Amino acid sequence: MLNRFFPILDWVRRYTGETLSADLVAAVIVTIMLIPQSLAYALLAGLPAEVGLYASIAPLIVYAIFGTSSALAVGPVAVASLMTAAAVGKLAEQGSPEYLGAAIALTFLSGLMLLAMGAMRLGFLASFLSHPVISGFISASGIIIAASQIRHLLGIDAEGHNLLDLGLSIARHLGETSLTTLLIGGAAAAFLFWARSGLKPFLIARGVTPKLAAILARTGPVAVVVVTTLISALIAGIAGDGVLRVVGTVPSGLPVPSLPPLDLLLWAQIAVPALLISVVGYVETISVAQTLAAKRRQRIDPDQELIALGGANLGAALSGGFPVTGGFARSVVNFDAGAATPAAGAYTAVLMALATLTLTPALYYLPKATLAATIIVAVLSLVDLKALPRTFAYSRADGAAMAATILVTLATGVETGILAGVGLSLFLHLYRSSRPHVAIVGQVPGTEHFRNVKRHHVVTAPDVVTIRVDESLYFANARFLEDVVQAEVAANPKLAHVVLMCPAVNEIDASALESLEAIAHRLRDSGVTLHLSEVKGPVMDRLGPTHFLRDLTGVVFLTQCDAMRALAPALTERTLAAPRRETLRHTG
Amino acid sequence: MLNRFFPILDWVRRYTGETLSADLVAAVIVTIMLIPQSLAYALLAGLPAEVGLYASIAPLIVYAIFGTSSALAVGPVAVASLMTAAAVGKLAEQGSPEYLGAAIALTFLSGLMLLAMGAMRLGFLASFLSHPVISGFISASGIIIAASQIRHLLGIDAEGHNLLDLGLSIARHLGETSLTTLLIGGAAAAFLFWARSGLKPFLIARGVTPKLAAILARTGPVAVVVVTTLISALIAGIAGDGVLRVVGTVPSGLPVPSLPPLDLLLWAQIAVPALLISVVGYVETISVAQTLAAKRRQRIDPDQELIALGGANLGAALSGGFPVTGGFARSVVNFDAGAATPAAGAYTAVLMALATLTLTPALYYLPKATLAATIIVAVLSLVDLKALPRTFAYSRADGAAMAATILVTLATGVETGILAGVGLSLFLHLYRSSRPHVAIVGQVPGTEHFRNVKRHHVVTAPDVVTIRVDESLYFANARFLEDVVQAEVAANPKLAHVVLMCPAVNEIDASALESLEAIAHRLRDSGVTLHLSEVKGPVMDRLGPTHFLRDLTGVVFLTQCDAMRALAPALTERTLAAPRRETLRHTG
Repeated sequence: MLNRFFPILDWVRRYTGETLSADLVAAVIVTIMLIPQSLAYALLAGLPAEVGLYASIAPLIVYAIFGTSSALAVGPVAVASLMTAAAVGKLAEQGSPEYLGAAIALTFLSGLMLLAMGAMRLGFLASFLSHPVISGFISASGIIIAASQIRHLLGIDAEGHNLLDLGLSIARHLGETSLTTLLIGGAAAAFLFWARSGLKPFLIARGVTPKLAAILARTGPVAVVVVTTLISALIAGIAGDGVLRVVGTVPSGLPVPSLPPLDLLLWAQIAVPALLISVVGYVETISVAQTLAAKRRQRIDPDQELIALGGANLGAALSGGFPVTGGFARSVVNFDAGAATPAAGAYTAVLMALATLTLTPALYYLPKATLAATIIVAVLSLVDLKALPRTFAYSRADGAAMAATILVTLATGVETGILAGVGLSLFLHLYRSSRPHVAIVGQVPGTEHFRNVKRHHVVTAPDVVTIRVDESLYFANARFLEDVVQAEVAANPKLAHVVLMCPAVNEIDASALESLEAIAHRLRDSGVTLHLSEVKGPVMDRLGPTHFLRDLTGVVFLTQCDAMRALAPALTERTLAAPRRETLRHTG
Repeated sequence: MLNRFFPILDWVRRYTGETLSADLVAAVIVTIMLIPQSLAYALLAGLPAEVGLYASIAPLIVYAIFGTSSALAVGPVAVASLMTAAAVGKLAEQGSPEYLGAAIALTFLSGLMLLAMGAMRLGFLASFLSHPVISGFISASGIIIAASQIRHLLGIDAEGHNLLDLGLSIARHLGETSLTTLLIGGAAAAFLFWARSGLKPFLIARGVTPKLAAILARTGPVAVVVVTTLISALIAGIAGDGVLRVVGTVPSGLPVPSLPPLDLLLWAQIAVPALLISVVGYVETISVAQTLAAKRRQRIDPDQELIALGGANLGAALSGGFPVTGGFARSVVNFDAGAATPAAGAYTAVLMALATLTLTPALYYLPKATLAATIIVAVLSLVDLKALPRTFAYSRADGAAMAATILVTLATGVETGILAGVGLSLFLHLYRSSRPHVAIVGQVPGTEHFRNVKRHHVVTAPDVVTIRVDESLYFANARFLEDVVQAEVAANPKLAHVVLMCPAVNEIDASALESLEAIAHRLRDSGVTLHLSEVKGPVMDRLGPTHFLRDLTGVVFLTQCDAMRALAPALTERTLAAPRRETLRHTG
């Protein structure tokens, strides 16, 4: 029991020197990747650089204790950072203490929500963000993020939380472009873009072993940070401060634990964004964690992941950080580098703490353009617009949902975008589930098979209608069945028997039972007899003591063939030559 | 096409002298029933008596033009009146022009919403109010309504929109009880209560023909109105006005058409109550209409009913009335009295207009206690608390939803009550639909049947797991399948093959396709081969051109038996003696 809530108890007993060294190697590589990313995503969220570092220490330790994935690397990620900027930007001026306070409160609330969802085992709610909506949202967010970083590459001021505002704002300030900034930022972006696919083969071609080359290729962003910081310091030495926009003073030392502002009005204002960040972050986390777990035939517990992620965000908030989730790229690196247990995350945290203690003075001259280049190259891999025609080709409804999510997100920003997507998903879900799949079936001549009259050449009796119900019946779809039966009765004046064939009905809830009672009652009033066939055992057990079954005018047939033999003997005589086969009572 | 939106065009051509006389008889009987009810429900809604009369004229004519039910009697009903009082009571003082204006705006907005839902064919949304929630809500509303009328029976002041407030308020004012009022109200209630079941047999026993007795039994409420009004006038003549609370001056003459107040703040405040009244009213209307239509093998069009009901409410609002729906008791009377077409409703409207023109002076001395008695006796038939243990016995989840709706409604009032019920229904729906019904199956020895390993004695191969999917896969439930497969892989180290058996999968949406791709990808990483079996034709057609099928590591087997023959030949040799039968490619 205790093990379920503290997965650490499971793996810590099996911890050996071998796992230790594997975890340590992974931690070093992830740390090298995380330093520039944590600074860059803090910039994206409109927060001071040290907040990014703080968000990469405590949350990782919390996740190591509660998490079930051995490879997930928790920390700041691009989309959550953009969502933070959008949510907090409405409430306070960037750079003000209120802005930081609101971001921390948002993180805290998001952590509480995730914890609550985990405690109530509500992970399933994330399913209602459909794949097309999530995919469209992530692509659109990537585009907005890239657009929002252009100002840093150009060294200009520009604002906006959607593509339109950003574009207009950039166009207005384009004349103020700093050529030095553009040169350094452009070169950094070009190098990083090339390094993503070109650095590893380049190194191998120059005699580096493939394994070392793979590790060195990951150090591209850090190399860019080091080189551009040196250039920036050189320029400042020659031409004085102010030519390039730089990160500036980053306070040294570890974060001091503190509580988020207890302002109920503020909490009410950030409740919806906090929920959205929680759900989007969770969906991303769980899909990365499951993909990596599968590679080692491991299992992750989706509800426990909610608790771990909630704890990580509480940890972030209490140590002055901002929202964290499981990042895709970092987790893959962590996995590839050999991380064997969640301890790798804890070691990364220790290394990040050391970096925070020692390296911050060196970050003074780090150009913001470098961080912007890091962000742009990272998020472009999130943009997958080819998914749109592919999804549309498979299902027009899904394609439309994706297109709507992309357009609304680009045009109005992340919050309305994701809300529109969720609303659309939910609406499509309700619409779909309000119509159970049913078919009027007839007999395939010469066989005991019954098939859809619209798809197959079958025979039917004029006074019998057989409606095959292909799904469980419950309140959302039962009323539709009432309409179907009513329409058949109104359309066939000769109708004397309705057979509901239930081979795929696994459940009938109380609402559906009342709908069946209404159907039975109305059929009796119309002078039509109602029969059932092929009812599964467990469903039959539940229906047994009900009024519906006691007052049924017709018969419950074990098989549809029995039903047709009894109700339309002439028909079955004609079409069915084969002898009767044994039938099973329980078909579940 | 025109006929679909104007069902009147259908039946008016077939209109004969016979249908005319049938409709006229029904109209007379319904009018006799409607006069006291319309006054009583206006009182319940906190509105002047004439508003009840106005709501019984124009809406009936509009419904006759647009409605598809030949028996539905539209007009004021108890639950909608209570909901109106609850919604408007928060915004204005009862008796003020603002109160009336808000009630009319509520009616107008509700009409617009119903029309919009009809135009967009959104009738299915009503399905998401589950039967247990509706039933619990109606029972609890009946109790609150009865409790709210006790003050009129006692002649005291008391307020409150839930049972607690009402009870406390009545207790505080109990000392002010007027004995004369209690005597008249109590006698009226006792007579009406007896008349519901006792009057008809009483008349038959005294030689009245059963048909006439049935009609006379309906006149009970009107008789009570006449008798108590005469007594009230007598008391006023002897002791002066003020002993009994009476209806007072009711303006004579027809309503003057007028627009609702155009106050956007007001509209925003009543939007949620208007939606709730619309949906609850629609659910009641459609279930009454379908029950009555079935008795004559007729069909009603649920989406057209939304339009007709929306039009009726717009008609009510524009003629100074309040929310109307199809009432259960009146519709049954209309049907029993022989109403053959919606014209019966139009004739009722004409008769109500005549009553409004001529009878209003006679209503001056009508005691409010009489109307309260009418309401109490009418709503007690709505209260069905026995449904609670019955529902609970059938399904604990449904029983819990019903109990919660009843408790919240009684404790806090109709609005939070219905919202809690809707929220709970939706939550249960989402929870249920997030888990597709799946079963691990094995082979019944000696047969080609495959059954749930938990329910049947079956054989399985150690390196093959067959998961039978019993439902269509889509975004809400596909992620759960990922968890199921992942759990099986993690639990069986020997596993080499996973077969997804899909005999009941009618659809796979884009999200589910991505989940299948994720499952396939992860299984490949785990060294497990993924196979499909018994995929329906239409599903196969759609999967054909996808990456998923192209990259599938395993085989798509026509039957599960084929799959086991190929993957576990030793097993099938042992268990299967029978020769192979012909299998159908398309199983849909």
